[in-house]
Amino acid sequence: MKDYELTLQVMLDRAVSQFGHKEIVSEEADGTTHRYTYDEAADRMAQLANALDELGLEMGSRASVMAINHHRHYELYFGLSCSGRSIHMTNHMLPDEHIVEIVNEAEDEVVFVDPAFVETVENVADQFETVEHYVVLDDEVPETDLEPIQSYEDLLSGHETDYEWPDIDEEREAGICYTSGTTGLPKGVAYTHRNIYLHTLTHSHIDVFKISENDVVMPVVPMYHVNGWGLPYTATLCGSKLVLPGPKTDSEQIAELIDREGVTITAAVPTVWREMASFYDERDDIELESLDRVLTGGSSPPEWLMEKFDKEIGAPIYQGYGMTEAAPNLVNTMTTTEVKEELDESGRYQQQMKPGIPAPGVQIRLRDQSGEEVPHDGESSGEIQARAPWLIDEYYKRPEATAESFTDDGWFKSGDVGTIDEYGYLEVVDRLDDIIKSGGEWISSIELENELMAHDAVEEATVISVEHEKWDERPVAYVVPSTDDVTADELRTHLRERYPKWWMPDKIVFVEQIPKTTTGKFNKKALRDDFDEEYDGLPLEE
Amino acid sequence: MKDYELTLQVMLDRAVSQFGHKEIVSEEADGTTHRYTYDEAADRMAQLANALDELGLEMGSRASVMAINHHRHYELYFGLSCSGRSIHMTNHMLPDEHIVEIVNEAEDEVVFVDPAFVETVENVADQFETVEHYVVLDDEVPETDLEPIQSYEDLLSGHETDYEWPDIDEEREAGICYTSGTTGLPKGVAYTHRNIYLHTLTHSHIDVFKISENDVVMPVVPMYHVNGWGLPYTATLCGSKLVLPGPKTDSEQIAELIDREGVTITAAVPTVWREMASFYDERDDIELESLDRVLTGGSSPPEWLMEKFDKEIGAPIYQGYGMTEAAPNLVNTMTTTEVKEELDESGRYQQQMKPGIPAPGVQIRLRDQSGEEVPHDGESSGEIQARAPWLIDEYYKRPEATAESFTDDGWFKSGDVGTIDEYGYLEVVDRLDDIIKSGGEWISSIELENELMAHDAVEEATVISVEHEKWDERPVAYVVPSTDDVTADELRTHLRERYPKWWMPDKIVFVEQIPKTTTGKFNKKALRDDFDEEYDGLPLEE
Ligand SMILES: Nc1ncnc2c1ncn2[C@@H]1O[C@H](COP(=O)(O)OP(=O)(O)OP(=O)(O)O)[C@@H](O)[C@H]1O
Ligand SMILES: Nc1ncnc2c1ncn2[C@@H]1O[C@H](COP(=O)(O)OP(=O)(O)OP(=O)(O)O)[C@@H](O)[C@H]1O
Ligand SMILES: [Mg+2]
Ligand SMILES: [Mg+2]
Repeated sequence: MKDYELTLQVMLDRAVSQFGHKEIVSEEADGTTHRYTYDEAADRMAQLANALDELGLEMGSRASVMAINHHRHYELYFGLSCSGRSIHMTNHMLPDEHIVEIVNEAEDEVVFVDPAFVETVENVADQFETVEHYVVLDDEVPETDLEPIQSYEDLLSGHETDYEWPDIDEEREAGICYTSGTTGLPKGVAYTHRNIYLHTLTHSHIDVFKISENDVVMPVVPMYHVNGWGLPYTATLCGSKLVLPGPKTDSEQIAELIDREGVTITAAVPTVWREMASFYDERDDIELESLDRVLTGGSSPPEWLMEKFDKEIGAPIYQGYGMTEAAPNLVNTMTTTEVKEELDESGRYQQQMKPGIPAPGVQIRLRDQSGEEVPHDGESSGEIQARAPWLIDEYYKRPEATAESFTDDGWFKSGDVGTIDEYGYLEVVDRLDDIIKSGGEWISSIELENELMAHDAVEEATVISVEHEKWDERPVAYVVPSTDDVTADELRTHLRERYPKWWMPDKIVFVEQIPKTTTGKFNKKALRDDFDEEYDGLPLEE
Repeated sequence: MKDYELTLQVMLDRAVSQFGHKEIVSEEADGTTHRYTYDEAADRMAQLANALDELGLEMGSRASVMAINHHRHYELYFGLSCSGRSIHMTNHMLPDEHIVEIVNEAEDEVVFVDPAFVETVENVADQFETVEHYVVLDDEVPETDLEPIQSYEDLLSGHETDYEWPDIDEEREAGICYTSGTTGLPKGVAYTHRNIYLHTLTHSHIDVFKISENDVVMPVVPMYHVNGWGLPYTATLCGSKLVLPGPKTDSEQIAELIDREGVTITAAVPTVWREMASFYDERDDIELESLDRVLTGGSSPPEWLMEKFDKEIGAPIYQGYGMTEAAPNLVNTMTTTEVKEELDESGRYQQQMKPGIPAPGVQIRLRDQSGEEVPHDGESSGEIQARAPWLIDEYYKRPEATAESFTDDGWFKSGDVGTIDEYGYLEVVDRLDDIIKSGGEWISSIELENELMAHDAVEEATVISVEHEKWDERPVAYVVPSTDDVTADELRTHLRERYPKWWMPDKIVFVEQIPKTTTGKFNKKALRDDFDEEYDGLPLEE
């Protein structure tokens, strides 16, 4: 008798044996729509596994996948992991040198790549140290120097649609993903089958995201970043219809897909929903009728946006707080009984704006700079530290980063600053790196930027911390205006309604756009460097 | 850094750190109501753990608990397991010789016992081989010969409300429970922390029983039988308000508790809900307004009952199929998208009558007598075999029963006969032991008895298999009539509307009551013995 291991095989088995007829819809690069079932997907995963055997890819070896969200990418999620290999979800938007570094560090032996990113790979392939095969995720191979190379369809073709999935220990690595690199070099996070299984099971818990077989799930968040927030796995375990938007990621296309496929739940970073909000106002023919709720995370969504989705679109935004290290979810929107009973509508609403309550199994604590526990009063802030059954306990091959990011008693140091209120709700104040330490007090860059973005004349805004001779650090805002005539004074007046004088940005820079990281976050590091270069610190001589 | 183990400590920690203020309501033997919070319960669990240290109870040792559902029992659930001991939930209604056998087999060192069962224990205590202490679950000790003995409150008093819970491996035993003994001697089922954690997490999955922090959970099913179907654990992980009905288990008391405490979900065997259905008709002042759904399992609930709860009471019955070995849940009521889309209301209703769909992580298969897979056509039947992350892989100290009940490839042989339909829904036809093998064909005793119970003049009915010279086996019915004038012919006519002639019971015996097992099931073994004794097999000479 063999122990029952928590593996991706169990998830796939449920989809196939219970919901094999359910649909996976995938938008393709050429504008067509690909439709098939879990049954058919599983057949192709078996073909893939057989093909990888023939390629000589051993259990435990890794393959890099550089692709957007489509059915072949989905097949690689399970075909690689269920056959004992590991999928390295590679962000093709990383700078070349990062791609080289992580593919070499992960010792990827095969690179699966979308036709659209073949050029990206060509530029760096000569620096790859371990890659032995290239596979283009298509039915033909474009003009290229890469070799040996074949198309994914050629790779699969002729192989059996049966495969004897090997016994897999739940502690075996199923995939590896790198952090966004917002605060430095991306760090490798290797997920075991167990990590993913437990994250997935908790994802669909009634007090988390309640993802059901009855849902139609569309991850807009890229599958190369933290497993598309786990949604492809969750849809599989639940047997939900899965919609993969492929290249369709602008508001119009997303909205059309939601309406066409009856999507009930979708997920993306706040920027995507900010765009959708304006688009929704412009277009009368968009219904979003089927949409039940929208997941967001990765950065803090502004309040007006959450209100808009809840009240006008009728699909409340559920926030998740997490990170690559946690696969990613730790904390999520929830209305507790206490909040229901004790607060009025507006109070309840305020609570819903916060990331919320730790998911079952997750432990969260706040520590101040001397390592002391911070009171849960909604005011006092400290570093968010976490434990969870699916949180990694080390970075891949980065002992120094590991030592910095985990406490002696095994808690993960998120690098984020948060508060917990008397109802137990977590709020993210800022990143430790981004928070503005002004004259011994803290100013939240997130609060300021969200308040700026609540102003009608502001399209986007971000606030960074800049060194200051006297106050140590002071806030500087970068604003993309939506009209020509808005002034810095006007925006300061707006901010003063909510924040004290000493919170006011020392400078407001109007720009045409704000640089973003490859996962859609404001790139504050780049802005800080720019500011130093242009103005050489604060105070300014203006 | 320490691995994150899946333990009951994690569950308790969530209740305390996130929902410490939530209430646990407990009805006491003396008619009073005890109310406190998870925080206060946890303090007492810590006191208990300290007291057990002082008693010298080592990690890994077991304590028998013979108690109904009340707050002290709840404290023992966590206080014992979280301190590394194991709770042996002991069914006080077992025959004396069974109690002796299982307490000795489990090597229980302490017996915690309700005042009401002290006499039961006194009768057998001299045969206990390992018990060193008795604790009465009260604040005083009644007149008794048991020794050494003290009251639970004395045991706790004076101890610290802090306890350093030890590091626990998830593979450590958290509790042990014996099967109902319906088919023979009760068999020991030892649950690891991991078993219980995974069962608990899945319990509240959106496609299982959706047990939320917002629910008010009342296990009527006894906590001495399969962990009260896991509900005390699930309420804890979710932080739900928990209502423990103590001695209040008749319809009136249950109904009053539901109304008084705002219970949203409750659970018990079908008999309890059968009684509730008649009671509800008799009494106008019972609202059951808060009740959202009702769980049942352990045997098959009749259709009229499910309809009554759904349509009149407004709280649909959710069925679970499972067993002690599975802690207990494997399969549960669910309406799949396919059923929603393809069937009309009455078809959907029929599906809801079935136990349903395997929970996430559960694998179910049907095997015929030659070990071949049975088609999923809703007609062909076979033995239900299962795998699940929380299913045990052996009986405690019973290698023979283990060898009989597990296949070589690690599946549990349930001893139940079922069908799976084209929608993937499992239905339980009968137990292998109870099904009537008549002339090479099978007759379901469950179907016949549920159809009998659908007749207005029948209060309760059960059908057993009796040896027959010619046909091997034939059905015999035992009926408790609700009026004086109902005849066997009338009942046969009723059965003939749905079933073929050869399904008709050879004899219908009218009785005043039907013997039940200690977990409320019809005791068919006893009836078979009675029948043999009285009539000496079939055919009868009548
Ligand atoms: N709901 C949220 N509200 C505010 N910030 C969030 C939220 N969810 C996630 N974040 C931010 O995103 C971070 C996790 O992002 P991710 O793992 O993609 O990489 P990163 O932290 O941006 O990059 P790196 O770790 O390489 O610097 C969190 O630590 C937090 O700062
Ligand atoms: N929903 C259901 N419908 C029909 N029968 C059920 C259902 N749920 C459980 N059962 C029956 O109850 C059994 C499990 O009961 P339990 O573990 O309490 O002990 P038992 O099987 O009655 O006793 P023993 O194993 O000692 O003979 C199942 O094997 C099945 O026969
Ligand atoms: Mg990070
Ligand atoms: Mg049994």
